[in-house]
Amino acid sequence: MSFLPAELIKKKRDGGHHTREEIEFLILENAKGNLPDYQMAAWLMAVFFRGMNADETHALTEVMLHSGQVLDFSNISVAKVDKHSTGGVGDKTSLILGPIVAAAGLAVPMIAGRGLGHTGGTLDKLESIPGFSIRMSETRFHELVAKHGLCFMGQTDQICPADKKIYALRDVTATIESFPLICASIMSKKLAEGIDALVLDVKYGSGAFMKTASMACDLAAALKDIGDKAGKRVHAFITNMDQPTGHFMGNALEVQEVLHIMNGSREHEDTRSLSLDLAAHMIFLGNKTKSIEEARALSEEILVSGRALRKFEEVVAAQGGDLSQLPKAQFQSTVKSPQKGYLSAFNTESIGYSCILLGAGRLHTSDPVDPTAGLKLHKKLGEPVESGENIFTLYSNNKNTFAETEARLKTCFQISESPFVAPTLIDRIMI
Amino acid sequence: MSFLPAELIKKKRDGGHHTREEIEFLILENAKGNLPDYQMAAWLMAVFFRGMNADETHALTEVMLHSGQVLDFSNISVAKVDKHSTGGVGDKTSLILGPIVAAAGLAVPMIAGRGLGHTGGTLDKLESIPGFSIRMSETRFHELVAKHGLCFMGQTDQICPADKKIYALRDVTATIESFPLICASIMSKKLAEGIDALVLDVKYGSGAFMKTASMACDLAAALKDIGDKAGKRVHAFITNMDQPTGHFMGNALEVQEVLHIMNGSREHEDTRSLSLDLAAHMIFLGNKTKSIEEARALSEEILVSGRALRKFEEVVAAQGGDLSQLPKAQFQSTVKSPQKGYLSAFNTESIGYSCILLGAGRLHTSDPVDPTAGLKLHKKLGEPVESGENIFTLYSNNKNTFAETEARLKTCFQISESPFVAPTLIDRIMI
Repeated sequence: MSFLPAELIKKKRDGGHHTREEIEFLILENAKGNLPDYQMAAWLMAVFFRGMNADETHALTEVMLHSGQVLDFSNISVAKVDKHSTGGVGDKTSLILGPIVAAAGLAVPMIAGRGLGHTGGTLDKLESIPGFSIRMSETRFHELVAKHGLCFMGQTDQICPADKKIYALRDVTATIESFPLICASIMSKKLAEGIDALVLDVKYGSGAFMKTASMACDLAAALKDIGDKAGKRVHAFITNMDQPTGHFMGNALEVQEVLHIMNGSREHEDTRSLSLDLAAHMIFLGNKTKSIEEARALSEEILVSGRALRKFEEVVAAQGGDLSQLPKAQFQSTVKSPQKGYLSAFNTESIGYSCILLGAGRLHTSDPVDPTAGLKLHKKLGEPVESGENIFTLYSNNKNTFAETEARLKTCFQISESPFVAPTLIDRIMI
Repeated sequence: MSFLPAELIKKKRDGGHHTREEIEFLILENAKGNLPDYQMAAWLMAVFFRGMNADETHALTEVMLHSGQVLDFSNISVAKVDKHSTGGVGDKTSLILGPIVAAAGLAVPMIAGRGLGHTGGTLDKLESIPGFSIRMSETRFHELVAKHGLCFMGQTDQICPADKKIYALRDVTATIESFPLICASIMSKKLAEGIDALVLDVKYGSGAFMKTASMACDLAAALKDIGDKAGKRVHAFITNMDQPTGHFMGNALEVQEVLHIMNGSREHEDTRSLSLDLAAHMIFLGNKTKSIEEARALSEEILVSGRALRKFEEVVAAQGGDLSQLPKAQFQSTVKSPQKGYLSAFNTESIGYSCILLGAGRLHTSDPVDPTAGLKLHKKLGEPVESGENIFTLYSNNKNTFAETEARLKTCFQISESPFVAPTLIDRIMI
């Protein structure tokens, strides 16, 4: 079936709803190079303003999903489960929950992403481990998932190529922040993993794309709806990102925090508990336990017993990494509190951008990353602080980054005189 | 000065207002090929939804105007005046008012357009005259305007090249129907003519882009505002297009109607009176008379005396045309009234598309045009009609077009049992 592209753009522009055939035409003809990017860009902007209903979003997801390969893990008898986070600062839960769920006997075929803008990326964190490789053939990915129950891979050209093309276009045309486009992009890639169940971590707050819990709930509901329509079991966490997760941000620094936790540290309680809760829901959705409570107890047991650490070491070794050689930054600096009081607010997005200044992240997909760069956050929301006490430690191999970063970080936190109660980490869980 | 294109798109997307430098960057970098069309398309769609304020629209007009050559007629001592219509069906007033105003002693350097979609174009009408050429150098255009007071030319690559590029992009990205974009496109081209004054004919109704008088007034006010800011004297007519202008549509057929009127016929009263009124305002704005009434009397005198016809023949001859050889269609057909009553409504846009089916217009800029094809409208709104009486006569050199066109035309008019009063042709004039 053929359509006039300008007519379809006009239809969406004027608030109309597309048929599945129309969406298929737009996406696949663009992927083939028959429908120019300028028409796709105009359509994407019309979608930004007019939105898409549930049927359209579902159709868009399926068209992007089937623009490439869908992985088939049917030869692995256990349930395949994964987690997706909408992006945060200091969020390293994947590196903890992946080993826990794999150690529980499920399979986690995790196709992960890189950091862009203020949010970090699982692949960058793993690549800070010397030798760790996230590039492999689909066959090798299969083998590693089958053998270890867990493998981390980057998106390949075969998986959702239409999404890859359109995402790149959205990035340069200010059409990223559209619910249906976000939903279809996330869910097409996750469905391409061939999973049975998915746990979503939709973040809101000063460090997240969604600024309010209500927006995060709307996005979570839309994502869950697509998963339900595709016959997958989906649970969605709505979690607060008004402060970084844990104490470390930056790639090797976050791997260090993960290792602390797996070695029994209770210092980074938010990272630890969120990882355990997410792992529990994955284990429950993978039918390993009869209740979420039982799954939570199993997760804790796997972590405390050291089985999570051993699984992580096993997977890292299988992907060529050497945890004993984690790199460290040459230079450090600190930002101190100008007064006594209580930590009452962070500009978490700006803290994320500070990490980019230090070299830990990227503004453009082609920017290089310094694996050692990043921040330690000494105080979390609600904690008391003395005048002159450290709030941040800065790490970088490039000393010249410190002046600008320090200046920025000084504007990224607030101290109140009266005690402040930090927001709950998990706002709600949609089951 | 340099900007990040995606930031500028986002600014407009979120309802911000651009500085002149930002607009200059977007338009000129796109014209140079440095800013890709997909970013321009996304920005155009954002403008469609968010609009532009008067300052932005004025800046866009000036940037497009100065992207090319501005004609300089300062060596011609009389005032240079022109008219622009937003597009209608059967609107051939330019061919009458041009000669009248030139005969009154003013200069009319008319850069005209071709028909696209349901609206006709002055250039297509003139080119139905065998030998008539609208292509010439700027020097030749100058010479003819100086010698005859009137010349019709097509847009050249040197005039508003940025507008030309962006208009082509708007055409295929459903971003034509945006007030500020329409305003800047129209006014940049008219200001490039180097005129002193302009009369606008902003049409509304079933055959116009603007469906209501109120929308047409808004557009007229925005156009007039740009003209005022550029130091030009501008009057704007708001005219009704709920029915075609005059009785003939199609290129050579419209030239015939023009010749009837210039030869003294009072049969096509709407075409005649609108041409005289528009000419009168042009003459008044060109300071030839002290009042509009005086200018109206002068126009009428020029038309009735035959001076308009002689000026038209002179200009046509100067541009190589031979009015004695106007081509005629080989085939005719008719659509008759199924009942007795009064003409109470036309779908004028659909009548315009019927002309395209017959070969008189084009859907795409590259489509060829049959100069002989078109329609005669036998009855105007409010006129009584007998059952079986002709409503339309179809003309074409391609008989195969008749069946589909007749079927369409049968749905393009309504007959009421009770008398119907046609809307006034000129709704108002903004001075």
